[in-house]
Amino acid sequence: MNIHDKLILLRRKMDEAGVSAVIIPNADPHQSEYLAEHWQALKWLTGFSGSAGTAVVTKRQAGMWTDFRYWIQAAAQLDGFELFKQGDTNVPSFDKWLTRSLSANDRVAIDGKMMSAAQAGRLKNKFTQKGIVLNTTMDLISDLWQDRPPKPRTQAFELDVVYAGETRKEKFSRIRKKMVDYDADCHVLAALDDIAWTFNLRGEDIHTNPVNLAFALITRETISLFIDSDKVSPALETALKTDGVDVFDYDNFYKTIQEINKKSRILLDPESVSDFIYQAIETHSDIIEMPNPTVMFKCRKNDVETSHIRATAVKDGRAVVNFLHWLNTSDGPKTEISAAHQLLKFRKEQEAFIHPSFDSIMAFKEHSAICHYSADPDTDLPLSPNAMFLTDSGGNYLTGTTDITRTVHLGSPTSQEIRDYTLVLKAHIAVATARFPTTARGYQIDAMARRHLWQQGLDFGHGTGHGVGFFLCVHEGPARLSTLPVDIALAPGMLLTNEPGLYREGQYGIRLENMVLVVEDEETRFGKFLKFENMTFCHFERSLMDKTLLSLAEINWVNAYHKMVYERLAPGLDTPVLNWLEHKTKPL
Amino acid sequence: MNIHDKLILLRRKMDEAGVSAVIIPNADPHQSEYLAEHWQALKWLTGFSGSAGTAVVTKRQAGMWTDFRYWIQAAAQLDGFELFKQGDTNVPSFDKWLTRSLSANDRVAIDGKMMSAAQAGRLKNKFTQKGIVLNTTMDLISDLWQDRPPKPRTQAFELDVVYAGETRKEKFSRIRKKMVDYDADCHVLAALDDIAWTFNLRGEDIHTNPVNLAFALITRETISLFIDSDKVSPALETALKTDGVDVFDYDNFYKTIQEINKKSRILLDPESVSDFIYQAIETHSDIIEMPNPTVMFKCRKNDVETSHIRATAVKDGRAVVNFLHWLNTSDGPKTEISAAHQLLKFRKEQEAFIHPSFDSIMAFKEHSAICHYSADPDTDLPLSPNAMFLTDSGGNYLTGTTDITRTVHLGSPTSQEIRDYTLVLKAHIAVATARFPTTARGYQIDAMARRHLWQQGLDFGHGTGHGVGFFLCVHEGPARLSTLPVDIALAPGMLLTNEPGLYREGQYGIRLENMVLVVEDEETRFGKFLKFENMTFCHFERSLMDKTLLSLAEINWVNAYHKMVYERLAPGLDTPVLNWLEHKTKPL
Repeated sequence: MNIHDKLILLRRKMDEAGVSAVIIPNADPHQSEYLAEHWQALKWLTGFSGSAGTAVVTKRQAGMWTDFRYWIQAAAQLDGFELFKQGDTNVPSFDKWLTRSLSANDRVAIDGKMMSAAQAGRLKNKFTQKGIVLNTTMDLISDLWQDRPPKPRTQAFELDVVYAGETRKEKFSRIRKKMVDYDADCHVLAALDDIAWTFNLRGEDIHTNPVNLAFALITRETISLFIDSDKVSPALETALKTDGVDVFDYDNFYKTIQEINKKSRILLDPESVSDFIYQAIETHSDIIEMPNPTVMFKCRKNDVETSHIRATAVKDGRAVVNFLHWLNTSDGPKTEISAAHQLLKFRKEQEAFIHPSFDSIMAFKEHSAICHYSADPDTDLPLSPNAMFLTDSGGNYLTGTTDITRTVHLGSPTSQEIRDYTLVLKAHIAVATARFPTTARGYQIDAMARRHLWQQGLDFGHGTGHGVGFFLCVHEGPARLSTLPVDIALAPGMLLTNEPGLYREGQYGIRLENMVLVVEDEETRFGKFLKFENMTFCHFERSLMDKTLLSLAEINWVNAYHKMVYERLAPGLDTPVLNWLEHKTKPL
Repeated sequence: MNIHDKLILLRRKMDEAGVSAVIIPNADPHQSEYLAEHWQALKWLTGFSGSAGTAVVTKRQAGMWTDFRYWIQAAAQLDGFELFKQGDTNVPSFDKWLTRSLSANDRVAIDGKMMSAAQAGRLKNKFTQKGIVLNTTMDLISDLWQDRPPKPRTQAFELDVVYAGETRKEKFSRIRKKMVDYDADCHVLAALDDIAWTFNLRGEDIHTNPVNLAFALITRETISLFIDSDKVSPALETALKTDGVDVFDYDNFYKTIQEINKKSRILLDPESVSDFIYQAIETHSDIIEMPNPTVMFKCRKNDVETSHIRATAVKDGRAVVNFLHWLNTSDGPKTEISAAHQLLKFRKEQEAFIHPSFDSIMAFKEHSAICHYSADPDTDLPLSPNAMFLTDSGGNYLTGTTDITRTVHLGSPTSQEIRDYTLVLKAHIAVATARFPTTARGYQIDAMARRHLWQQGLDFGHGTGHGVGFFLCVHEGPARLSTLPVDIALAPGMLLTNEPGLYREGQYGIRLENMVLVVEDEETRFGKFLKFENMTFCHFERSLMDKTLLSLAEINWVNAYHKMVYERLAPGLDTPVLNWLEHKTKPL
């Protein structure tokens, strides 16, 4: 069935249901960032394979909205759908576009499982102003999607407390304490990483995200985990039972929430719970809208986790240094894809490595200017010694998740490439050396980095950093370093990336990324201060630095960092690599 | 009647009304920052005279909340009220404190005219979660307040278009265009500076704020200004009538909004309209909640205004330089208060000066550590040649509003004073030299300034800058440079202050403040960039600068700024002052 046929069938369904438009977001019932194939309806319908997008089909038009990371890719992949460049000047958002296209009393359909209650609420508000009706109980896709892949069925496994640092019973007790604070009888968890963290469970249900497809309900007395029984070994089920966890099949969740005791007080986060769940609960109980307590617990790594992360940084640094050495010194043809294989090989040599934390970005020449470039056989470039090469990758280890980007030049850099690299490095150092009070927000740190580019009339279109999970999702909320006014104070234990960049379309891109951990600094008469501890060990490119653009403090930082990288990595590196690294980390 | 007696009477009223607590904010029916005496109920009740605070009285307790600017002052003035240091660690906000103190079904009273609809809505939400009822229709104060000052009665006068740069008819037309965009039949204006700007009217109803007590209603066909008729001369009334404005008495406004055609669509900003107004309108009409269009119009000064502001900066700079010269060279005893008189005298010599834009801060020694110190005969310090002196002042001219702070040492500064001054100067220069895209927010600029202090474990408890009106309020929204996540893009024509500081309680404070205008910079392939044009001309203290802490770029900025100050001010200064200024502006 081609896209044209799918649209004919979908519009027939729309007619039968009496709706004027249908919205198909890229989403699953857990509001995950990355989706199991079972929920890749957007890709099935439109052909677009990026990780963010929303399709809208009306009786006469079909549009797909995606942000600037995917404009080039979407333009190449879409067929039968008009591309709307979300965020571009004069391009309306899909809801604004719908509000203009439709008339009062028109009905818009969406599957309420595939949109958060908060987002559905905002949409309803906008539509209501024009008299348009949003119906969130219609799944018009499932019947049409005949070759739909099944739900993922990987095994769940226990993350031992020697890694997690806190037993699930301790976590339950912290969550219940918050429930008491909010006077809640029951708490609904739908976000897969929140559930994985809470239960100290991991799985492989989503590519590169070590989570299990599950829901959870925590009351003052009981704990229910909804996960398909064939994913839970008898031993694991016994262990869970011992900790007070009852296991039910995944699909039972929807029935259970309809049968919760009437008039309970239910704590949930409308941003992470689907509209379907919200509506089901709202009919019989009071909802206490709050961010999940787990989100604030999970983002602050405990001492056991941080000591693992420190050790993992060294292992992962060795893998990346081995890779950069191979890239720099080995003979034979290389391509973007073969480079990815090679890096994975080096990571697999490290202890407790499980799988990549995301599909690595290996981007040569003009590909490096595409922030989320992913090489495939059609685009795979051979690496020749004449241009910039950007490598952004990470590993999921039992001992933590990593995320690192380095940019190198495979030949002789131009003066503009050197200047750009040095400016991005200055932005990186501004974050690495930042000191800030306990009231500081990520947008303040982001501004300190970005200033070095803004002063030169330059900028980059992504945040300076995102939260990182512990052997969990490489993108983890709630804190981030970005231009957005996210009102979350940075706090000790938060693990973030520091990754300013600069992208010259059609030419090259630069991004320099380390992970940093928020740690306590001294207390002065002006309050408690925090700083970042570096959590990535891999040199930067001295040959791409223009020393005249660096302050003395910045030069000192580079030299001290390089000395530390050499000392930490040395014990596990082969002599040729070590000799090469010594050269790469010479003082400026 | 002393405070003790007032509390007894108030609690008797509370008993009669069946309420458990009453909230008394420092507010008027226009949500003004500064209040006419008629509305200074908080001062009457508590004795506290600062510009920001909220009192809460329960059956057994009486508390007053104020932010860090007023902690010292409030501690000295309060008697019978417990001081809550708003923003201090572990100090609950007044609503949180009330939520904890009260029980379900308790009633809290507030006069709905004295709180914005938005704030009242947020309070109601919080209270409802605990089952507490907020009643916004109770004025428990007016009956008790027997010697209450009358409402202000100053004359309204026209601000000529040669100053305003845009006729009121042009402004009405811009507002109505926005009303059409929002499909609004009627727009309610309650904020006094919005009304002054829209109608090109000024007055003296609030000390140092050149506004008139008024409300306005703008429909597609009519324009109604509610202002007491004895404030409007026959000539002015005729001029208004010619422009389509009907004048009604101030008190008629409340009646009129209850009689608006049923089912109108009414545009208003719940942040600037009182809960009383909102409730009255909500009973019969649809409310379109939007920031007032005037707020975004007013904050972007037009070309006529900016050219006046440029000229005003030179006049005002001459007044301040004359003052600093007097401070530095004249014999005879001086005090904080006599210094204020002297500066006012110099400002009065300048063309088109009307009155100060706020009560000037003349703060010697440890007083300079109190951000909003105001000298009175009891606290007035003689100025001796042994400590820091901070002077923060401004003028309201027909040609614009100014705001400037300088800090000097009247004797020989310590090395810590020099280091602190230099760090604050670095923060100031970070703003002065900032370049930023059209998407930039004030919190990003604030972070760039603050970094210089944070890196040394220092901080200051106020924003780096606020908007400034044009011959209007010295604090004007919506843009500001602060740590808060205010989501307003900086745009050409916005006039802001740049005033980082540093305060060592009991010792001294430093603040260095210029005004800056957002102007266009070049367009690069990364987008349009903006920068700041300096709008204050007065030297900084070379003797308080440690050159070794300044970068070459910072030294160059100081020298270029000083050269410009000298050149611009020279034509209007007497020879002794000019010679002195030449010395003060020598290159570093």
